Amino acid sequence: MAMEQKIADVSFESLLKIFTIPEGPDSTLTQIEAKLSQNLNKFLGEHIVAEEKPLREIEKDFSSARIPEQPEFVSDHTEHLLDTLVSHSVHTSSPSFIGHMTSALPYFLMPLSKIMIALNQNLVKIETSKAFTPLERQVLGMLHRLIYGQDDAFYSQWMHSAEHSLGAFCSGGTIANITALWVARNNALRAEGTFQGVEKEGLFKAMKHYGYEGLAVLVSERGHYSLKKAADVLGIGQSGLVAIKTDENNRICPQALEEKIQELKSQRIKPFAVIGVAGTTETGSVDPLRAIAQVCQRHACHFHVDAAWGGATLMSNKYRHLLDGAELADSVTIDAHKQLYVPMGAGMVLFKDPNAMSSIEHHAQYILRKGSKDLGSHTLEGSRSGMAMLVYASMHIISRPGYELLINQSIEKAKYFATLIKQQEDFELISEPELCLLTYRYIPAKVKQALTLANDEERVELNELLNELTKFVQKRQRETGKSFVSRTRLNPAQWSRMDTIVFRVVLANPLTSNDILACVLQQQRQIVQQQAPNLMVEIGRLSDQILSKSH
Amino acid sequence: MAMEQKIADVSFESLLKIFTIPEGPDSTLTQIEAKLSQNLNKFLGEHIVAEEKPLREIEKDFSSARIPEQPEFVSDHTEHLLDTLVSHSVHTSSPSFIGHMTSALPYFLMPLSKIMIALNQNLVKIETSKAFTPLERQVLGMLHRLIYGQDDAFYSQWMHSAEHSLGAFCSGGTIANITALWVARNNALRAEGTFQGVEKEGLFKAMKHYGYEGLAVLVSERGHYSLKKAADVLGIGQSGLVAIKTDENNRICPQALEEKIQELKSQRIKPFAVIGVAGTTETGSVDPLRAIAQVCQRHACHFHVDAAWGGATLMSNKYRHLLDGAELADSVTIDAHKQLYVPMGAGMVLFKDPNAMSSIEHHAQYILRKGSKDLGSHTLEGSRSGMAMLVYASMHIISRPGYELLINQSIEKAKYFATLIKQQEDFELISEPELCLLTYRYIPAKVKQALTLANDEERVELNELLNELTKFVQKRQRETGKSFVSRTRLNPAQWSRMDTIVFRVVLANPLTSNDILACVLQQQRQIVQQQAPNLMVEIGRLSDQILSKSH
Repeated sequence: MAMEQKIADVSFESLLKIFTIPEGPDSTLTQIEAKLSQNLNKFLGEHIVAEEKPLREIEKDFSSARIPEQPEFVSDHTEHLLDTLVSHSVHTSSPSFIGHMTSALPYFLMPLSKIMIALNQNLVKIETSKAFTPLERQVLGMLHRLIYGQDDAFYSQWMHSAEHSLGAFCSGGTIANITALWVARNNALRAEGTFQGVEKEGLFKAMKHYGYEGLAVLVSERGHYSLKKAADVLGIGQSGLVAIKTDENNRICPQALEEKIQELKSQRIKPFAVIGVAGTTETGSVDPLRAIAQVCQRHACHFHVDAAWGGATLMSNKYRHLLDGAELADSVTIDAHKQLYVPMGAGMVLFKDPNAMSSIEHHAQYILRKGSKDLGSHTLEGSRSGMAMLVYASMHIISRPGYELLINQSIEKAKYFATLIKQQEDFELISEPELCLLTYRYIPAKVKQALTLANDEERVELNELLNELTKFVQKRQRETGKSFVSRTRLNPAQWSRMDTIVFRVVLANPLTSNDILACVLQQQRQIVQQQAPNLMVEIGRLSDQILSKSH
Repeated sequence: MAMEQKIADVSFESLLKIFTIPEGPDSTLTQIEAKLSQNLNKFLGEHIVAEEKPLREIEKDFSSARIPEQPEFVSDHTEHLLDTLVSHSVHTSSPSFIGHMTSALPYFLMPLSKIMIALNQNLVKIETSKAFTPLERQVLGMLHRLIYGQDDAFYSQWMHSAEHSLGAFCSGGTIANITALWVARNNALRAEGTFQGVEKEGLFKAMKHYGYEGLAVLVSERGHYSLKKAADVLGIGQSGLVAIKTDENNRICPQALEEKIQELKSQRIKPFAVIGVAGTTETGSVDPLRAIAQVCQRHACHFHVDAAWGGATLMSNKYRHLLDGAELADSVTIDAHKQLYVPMGAGMVLFKDPNAMSSIEHHAQYILRKGSKDLGSHTLEGSRSGMAMLVYASMHIISRPGYELLINQSIEKAKYFATLIKQQEDFELISEPELCLLTYRYIPAKVKQALTLANDEERVELNELLNELTKFVQKRQRETGKSFVSRTRLNPAQWSRMDTIVFRVVLANPLTSNDILACVLQQQRQIVQQQAPNLMVEIGRLSDQILSKSH
């Protein structure tokens, strides 16, 4: 109903209606909502157009910067959203879209999300969130226990303590990582004597007080790009984010880490944090966390684990050993909107020591009064929604063993896909899956043969052509709209560390079947054969040339 | 249905069901959702218990840090959430809860939110958001035009430009303010000669290169607490956030600002940004933005306006003059989840100059490639949801004149309430409303009389008793659960700048009627009379004592 009976008018009465009278059962919006609730995949399948429209075309529908002077009926606007927005959105829950970290969601989260949004709590303080505050503290406690496994006495002492916080619920992994490094920086440059600490006096005075020439955070060269942002924001500078080389499995080399720390120290540069990655974004690799922990302990560095992706693996008793050593970290980032299968916007950072966050604690008169249990006194963000409710509900409805099954099947599906790729004569696996990510590329059988005879120059040339082919196939596959893999650039050992463009797949969606995986390869093969004649001729010619040398 | 037919089991088949089979029409969750959709206020009124349960009691329901080993049926868990969480949440949309900035939401946003969550887009990049990217860019363009009013040519040139961004959509005003100051800091300490800029080399080298002894951000003493957090995170230090005194209307004194800047400069401290507040959190006051802009121009400071609360006033042709000078700001923060009436999680920062954000631009191999239109290259956050869709829909369905009505009625309701308070012989208005916020307190008629005769010492004593009374009344009113105002501490001129505890109300909810306002006062009066006998006796005795002196 609302403003839908006649031409939309602007009066205070009609405005009050939109706050008091819900859309009627026959309204367009209610019907669309019902269809979506009945069968999301069917709804999205019907409403998202398969073939990609060029972005420039889509932009035409979003070109006016004028705020409308004329109201629209809810039903009219809903139709408009379906036509212009929903139809050209991305079917992130499709089982054949395996190129990103956004997977299908359990159905129950949709009505629960609506309840969460209708309640419109603000978690910054108790006054606007009441029971949501202990709920969020419990969720943080659960994740803390998943990582650190402290006993019940520990959680009953700290979980709801007003002056402490076991972590922070954030909008995502980036804010979680920034929060961890913020805490680490402030603890490294804490108050001492007449110096009041970096939080009060700032970085310049802190450096002078401590006599440092620079600060450094060390991470493998496969670390997430957001860490550079963190280093910039925190005043360390991007050059203070020091990349450590990785081995042939994309894992940080502890020896190289140790040497770099010593080198930095000899230059009076303070390495205040080391980040271990538990599930790199590109290959899903997990750093040797236990070995990093030892290095950190030796040098009194804050040890942070970026497990935004891989953290959920701790739910699996079968595979949690892959994250061995995470329990030694001072802080850990986990994104619930990744492998805990809740909607976008649920990052978390957990701190081993309940006192760690005191270095960033803040208070204000009108809220966050000292001694209150307001969550806002330990978060980078201010106002925040009740997202923690969705994590809480998922952990109760799915339960730990349910998550274990989801994690196990995703890892095992990745292993299956790796085997499948290796069986193809015209594909090459680039990185073996550790978690549920792997990378590969198309490489004609003839090229594989030619490579055994190619000299360095020819290998470079072949690699460049294959890079171009991979890029082309990935783009065409996306545009066709039947399936989607992403791409990235790696420097694999088997390709002499040359820049290598690869397909990247993430197999988290439980609805992705083995058949779908076979289809993805078949589609890529078809694109190569039917749509890339010029590139294939060039690749064939070069391969023949190399092969002919041997005769 | 899902796992609801028998005892909840853990098998991959039952897990697949939660991803593929929606809750049935008779399921508890569907029914709860339906009730909530039919009449939100009734639903909340029935399910949120009125009388407040002590937090310690609520915490008992959220005390285990163990992730359950046994799955729960969706319906069982939904009942559990109703009993333990919803029942003890805060009725933020209640028209008699006028103590915080969270108001009622238009109905159409609830089903739209569900669609947004079901689509589960990730705005960090085009690949996972497609049409949502131009939509968000348009929303930023609309807010930019609302503030800066550039012509159509401007927006068609910049709004969708890959290398530019008119602002950033954030989880809230805190991140928006941090983003603005991050940009300002990086522009102030930009690359020059062999120095590569603060973003690359960090703050310590930047300070040495520029020869500064410190950095400063200036803001009125009524600035939001999050700015201290920002100063800490950005490495400036909380002491670099310099508070400038305000006049009797809680507005910054431009003369004091000018003098402070000169003083800082003479100490080789660089004042790189000044923040004008357009709607302080405590009193809704708006700084003299035009005068601040002149000071900033004189000293080449970045001028940021924190209009998280007041920005929506620009929608009102009648009242937008209250923010006169906002268009001179280099950046402006606006929270759509405040007076644009969308759910929690929709902050924005807009930059006048489309090139401003290049100082924080970042790229990565696998996403945010240079030349792409990925929004993630200009945001502090990484993965983000499609919240911008809700702002977009609201602006189309409510339209600019609709927002104007909402803004006008809220300002005029505050003026009405101020008049009402002044008419009471036992209340005192502390701050006049500029926007829709005001502060006041209970003060017995006899005290008003006594004050005319009291000496300094007696005024201090009376003030302390009134502070205690205000605190008591606010707490009891909240606990009773019928209505809610918040409280804060001010230093009003009429109370000789003494610490003064006041009631604070925010009149944004369009459902709050004049009757409700009268009731709120009546309830407070009742609490004083019926529940605060000891305090009232003490206040009465002191007043009598003062009054007796005159005889």
